[in-house]
Amino acid sequence: MKQALEGIKVLDFSQLLQGPYATQMLGDVGADVIKVERIKTGDIYRDMTFFNKWIAGDESPCFMAWNRNKRSIAVDMKSEQGKDIIYKLVQQADIIVENFRPGVMKRLGYGYEDLKQINPSIIYCSASGWGDEGPYLKRPGQDLLAQSISGAVMTSGKENDGPVAIGTALCDQVNALNSVYAILAALFYRERTGIGQEIKTNLLSSAIAFQMQDYFTIQNLGVPFERPNSNIGHPGNAAPFGMYGTKDGFISIAMCPWSKLVKALEDDTLNKYDDAQILYDKRDEIHGEVEKIIKTKTTQEWLDIMLSFDIWVAKVNKQSEVEFDPQVKFNNTFVEIRHPKAGKVKVTNIPFTMSETPGEITRASPLIGEHGEEILSELGYTEEEIADLINVEVISVEKVK
Amino acid sequence: MKQALEGIKVLDFSQLLQGPYATQMLGDVGADVIKVERIKTGDIYRDMTFFNKWIAGDESPCFMAWNRNKRSIAVDMKSEQGKDIIYKLVQQADIIVENFRPGVMKRLGYGYEDLKQINPSIIYCSASGWGDEGPYLKRPGQDLLAQSISGAVMTSGKENDGPVAIGTALCDQVNALNSVYAILAALFYRERTGIGQEIKTNLLSSAIAFQMQDYFTIQNLGVPFERPNSNIGHPGNAAPFGMYGTKDGFISIAMCPWSKLVKALEDDTLNKYDDAQILYDKRDEIHGEVEKIIKTKTTQEWLDIMLSFDIWVAKVNKQSEVEFDPQVKFNNTFVEIRHPKAGKVKVTNIPFTMSETPGEITRASPLIGEHGEEILSELGYTEEEIADLINVEVISVEKVK
Repeated sequence: MKQALEGIKVLDFSQLLQGPYATQMLGDVGADVIKVERIKTGDIYRDMTFFNKWIAGDESPCFMAWNRNKRSIAVDMKSEQGKDIIYKLVQQADIIVENFRPGVMKRLGYGYEDLKQINPSIIYCSASGWGDEGPYLKRPGQDLLAQSISGAVMTSGKENDGPVAIGTALCDQVNALNSVYAILAALFYRERTGIGQEIKTNLLSSAIAFQMQDYFTIQNLGVPFERPNSNIGHPGNAAPFGMYGTKDGFISIAMCPWSKLVKALEDDTLNKYDDAQILYDKRDEIHGEVEKIIKTKTTQEWLDIMLSFDIWVAKVNKQSEVEFDPQVKFNNTFVEIRHPKAGKVKVTNIPFTMSETPGEITRASPLIGEHGEEILSELGYTEEEIADLINVEVISVEKVK
Repeated sequence: MKQALEGIKVLDFSQLLQGPYATQMLGDVGADVIKVERIKTGDIYRDMTFFNKWIAGDESPCFMAWNRNKRSIAVDMKSEQGKDIIYKLVQQADIIVENFRPGVMKRLGYGYEDLKQINPSIIYCSASGWGDEGPYLKRPGQDLLAQSISGAVMTSGKENDGPVAIGTALCDQVNALNSVYAILAALFYRERTGIGQEIKTNLLSSAIAFQMQDYFTIQNLGVPFERPNSNIGHPGNAAPFGMYGTKDGFISIAMCPWSKLVKALEDDTLNKYDDAQILYDKRDEIHGEVEKIIKTKTTQEWLDIMLSFDIWVAKVNKQSEVEFDPQVKFNNTFVEIRHPKAGKVKVTNIPFTMSETPGEITRASPLIGEHGEEILSELGYTEEEIADLINVEVISVEKVK
């Protein structure tokens, strides 16, 4: 079966999270993604991990998570011969992605204006922390910092919690998604007109746009969100919207007509709260009253009862339970692939289906420069020339021991 | 200036959040988005709001946030004349988006197979809660519920907090972004081959894929995340990564060599923690020690000190402070547009720039069926025919009073 971006070449200069996730998404739907890494040491994300633990000795789960469906070439980007290689790759590329601090690519000779000379219809996406100009230009740009400046850390948890970081790399990941959105729009435009362009995305703008509804509300109603003091599920919502402890776990209840919930809870005294304003003003008190009742039965008992009323309810899964959830299993959300060093690894599948051009996971994350010889050979370098480039340390090629 | 999706028509049957955000993104880069609403009452999100408050009498900030750059037609989708109108719109459309519960569009005569008969190269995206088959098929699909089943609510906050909902509509918004990603990949493929297709996205798969790095880590290292008992910023991270109270607010510190931070804090006794394993194992204790020092100076004092060491640091903004942040102002993140009933409203700008085809916000969210007459006239209906369709209640047109 064909893939949607078959024939499209992406030259990926990005490191860490946001850029690599963006290019992985392009690879997931069929683009040929060539990751250009630092010679010998590679992407700096290879040196970071969680819990101070590693896979197969020295492989990082952080790096491995965002670099499937790519080939790697590790090049001395500052050497003349390295430049020759990169410029040849640029000639064949459709899309460039980079997320260095603003100005770095230009200093190296790989800025948009430089590469446009070599390939006039190139689509060039720079992803930064704050934008490529302005007061924060020299500041480090990173996910938690963008969560902080964008106000995202003030949206979760309880009113007296102080800031609460969102426990996944929200800004990096949302900006990766926005980068793909802009790149694919530009690719369509180029297909119609032949005209390439430069795209600039940044963590901060993506983090704020992601909170579009929240900012629209507080700016145009003129009322700030105040986080609840109970487990109500959003600072702007009334009871019962939220999470409740059961006898053996937690359930979530979404939008629900109050009278329907009162029937399911079998406690008519709760009818006194049946008013939109009261449900907002007394949400913490109401949450407490409801939770007292919900604590008396198990999660499964409440699911059976509430689903029979068509109440919008779900079990709260611990992360360790998620892969065993019946719908998650049905959806094939997790699949196994082979990594050259680590053997079988479990990865998250592409989260959608396409009837004509299904996405596909064809390879695990590469070793540093693993495909250097193959990529140079495609560019027309001879075996001797490639051996020489390795010898003089213009490229490095990591092999499985 | 041209826009990237100029000439592309989107027929949008979606309601609430995920579908409307997806089609808004297509409109932001130039597609002509026609929102097909229920006659008279429109999108059910028009009836929901925060704090039980409304804009200009009865407009919902939730609805308004996700429906700019669209025109609206309000049609009786079950009537024969309504069907005629919709089928004519389908003939001219490139993309269909819908997010009813699985099966509803088919029952109404608007399933993929039905519309493909009318327009063989149509791209048709269905966005559901859990997928269009499987054990949760009949269950209500909603953002908080998908946060719960995907484990997302167990990633933020402290170990003893129980579940912590992410305070923005994470799953809806991420699935909107994934829908746009798949639609634009399909649009490119169609441009090259002439072949349309059916896309299916869902909240649950998107929510899990968004936690890709987190699941990759726990599944392949075999170690579960345990949330910290302090304000460390991610369950898998070591100190100092996290948020700290200052004399007058909070700052975030991202990845930082420990010895560099100790210098900035001017307390050599902290050198005893300078070991990767200790920084993880004792992260809560270390967070406490560091916060004691950080409490002694203001946010601005710490920014000055730490930025001089190139420590990755940022201020934590309250949501109400975000629009006054210097970089946010520089980036023009918030812009004003005119709404037919509410007058000037403030909206979040498109979060990226494109040099050749910049996105543009050309209109605020529509009234219910506001553009019905204009859209029918473009389909070739005469003024008399349109008046008759209004008269017999096949379409409704809301006007500003």
